[in-house]
Amino acid sequence: MQVLKTIEELQNIRKNSLGKVGLVPTMGALHNGHISLIKQARNENDIVIVSIFVNPTQFLPGEDLDAYPRRDEADKKICQMCKVDYVFMPEISTMYTKEEVLVKAPNKSYILEGKTRPGHFDGVLQVVLKLFNLTQPTNAYFGKKDAQQLTLIQQMVKNFFLPINIVPCDIVREEDGLALSSRNIYLNPTQRKDALLISKSLYMAGSLISSGERSVKAVKDKIYEVMSILDVEYVAIVDKEFNELETIEPTNTIILVVARFGNTRLLDNIWL
Amino acid sequence: MQVLKTIEELQNIRKNSLGKVGLVPTMGALHNGHISLIKQARNENDIVIVSIFVNPTQFLPGEDLDAYPRRDEADKKICQMCKVDYVFMPEISTMYTKEEVLVKAPNKSYILEGKTRPGHFDGVLQVVLKLFNLTQPTNAYFGKKDAQQLTLIQQMVKNFFLPINIVPCDIVREEDGLALSSRNIYLNPTQRKDALLISKSLYMAGSLISSGERSVKAVKDKIYEVMSILDVEYVAIVDKEFNELETIEPTNTIILVVARFGNTRLLDNIWL
Repeated sequence: MQVLKTIEELQNIRKNSLGKVGLVPTMGALHNGHISLIKQARNENDIVIVSIFVNPTQFLPGEDLDAYPRRDEADKKICQMCKVDYVFMPEISTMYTKEEVLVKAPNKSYILEGKTRPGHFDGVLQVVLKLFNLTQPTNAYFGKKDAQQLTLIQQMVKNFFLPINIVPCDIVREEDGLALSSRNIYLNPTQRKDALLISKSLYMAGSLISSGERSVKAVKDKIYEVMSILDVEYVAIVDKEFNELETIEPTNTIILVVARFGNTRLLDNIWL
Repeated sequence: MQVLKTIEELQNIRKNSLGKVGLVPTMGALHNGHISLIKQARNENDIVIVSIFVNPTQFLPGEDLDAYPRRDEADKKICQMCKVDYVFMPEISTMYTKEEVLVKAPNKSYILEGKTRPGHFDGVLQVVLKLFNLTQPTNAYFGKKDAQQLTLIQQMVKNFFLPINIVPCDIVREEDGLALSSRNIYLNPTQRKDALLISKSLYMAGSLISSGERSVKAVKDKIYEVMSILDVEYVAIVDKEFNELETIEPTNTIILVVARFGNTRLLDNIWL
């Protein structure tokens, strides 16, 4: 495994790479969620590139950019164990110059996550576009956990005619159901225990729908009921293009939940 | 020569193309300026693609989108004579969907051309990025006449890490000095004659600088003097990143002029 720091190294490697290239873009602090993406990339490609870059442009002022967990050495070991070919770990000054041509996410990036984090998705798309152009992957792997991000990346690929296959990957959970997140380490033991109500509320919603419920209102009520002791930021039921639904569409529905624990926001969702 | 209308045709052709690919993006109404780009592309590449697309997103409301000259059949003949391999002529609905991920040019896109045409360069970069991703050229050819556009495209290529070589091409002029433009046909005979003062003012500026003048003010005064009977929109003296200069830098200066003739804006410039 080779660790690359510069654009020149990466472009040089890419120019001389044959076969299918799989990219797993991450902000590091790798957990089993990332590992499942990397394993899938390893299965489906000749060459696997993992990028580790805590992207400043997707953090808003006052967010946890400085506090965001950094574990470069552990991350490298995980990548090596997963038989990654190249880890790309650039400095901020390698990825950005002073005044840039920007990417502007569409209006629907300003609902849900984008309502709390206006401009967040502009930064996400900007860095993802840069990484795509640098690595020119055949396949790029993203978790369904960041559902809105995934949808916007799929839209960017379509709008910009990028010849890249986006592979959505299932959410990985702790044994007790909590969706994995690099931010879970911020939770104290009580918060950690209460956080289980998030996935529980989604399971309950799922079983309600399985038993025939199609009313968005009824499903939302059930979710809020299960999470009644939590500080819920939003519960949303949308189709796969993030249009709000009034009636559950059994194969085209995402149910999203965000709850706050102090300064920590935890996201979870299920895709029907 | 093959005329391509759809994304699928173009992507298919591109996937099976070996060797160097040269792209000449145009809005059609091809004149000798375009032809010089196409000839250079033909000399330097194995495959030459010319795109002809009057891009709506770079026109502001009230501009000449509907009146912009369209000469599809003549353009195809010109491309054939220049031994172009593929002409890409998409419909608007092929290039754009309803709500898009956008490209946002940096602040310096709001001076000079961008002051009169705010948002124009966002549209230019958006369509150029799409065309780049579709055709994945080795080399892409742009005239120096649209100097600010050229600079912004170069910046986008750098910021987005596009593996594309941008080739700036010299301005082509009528025998009497008028820079070629698809909009020259809008001029009546008197305007056509007066328009010669534009290139004349630049020649005078050039010879002033050759004889040692380094004061931006002195050079600008001369240009305004030569164009005194014209409706001059701006005269600007900038470096190659479009920062305004106070002193002429003999190898890093662009002198730009825009004059209006009724509703027609004519651009010209020289690069030192």
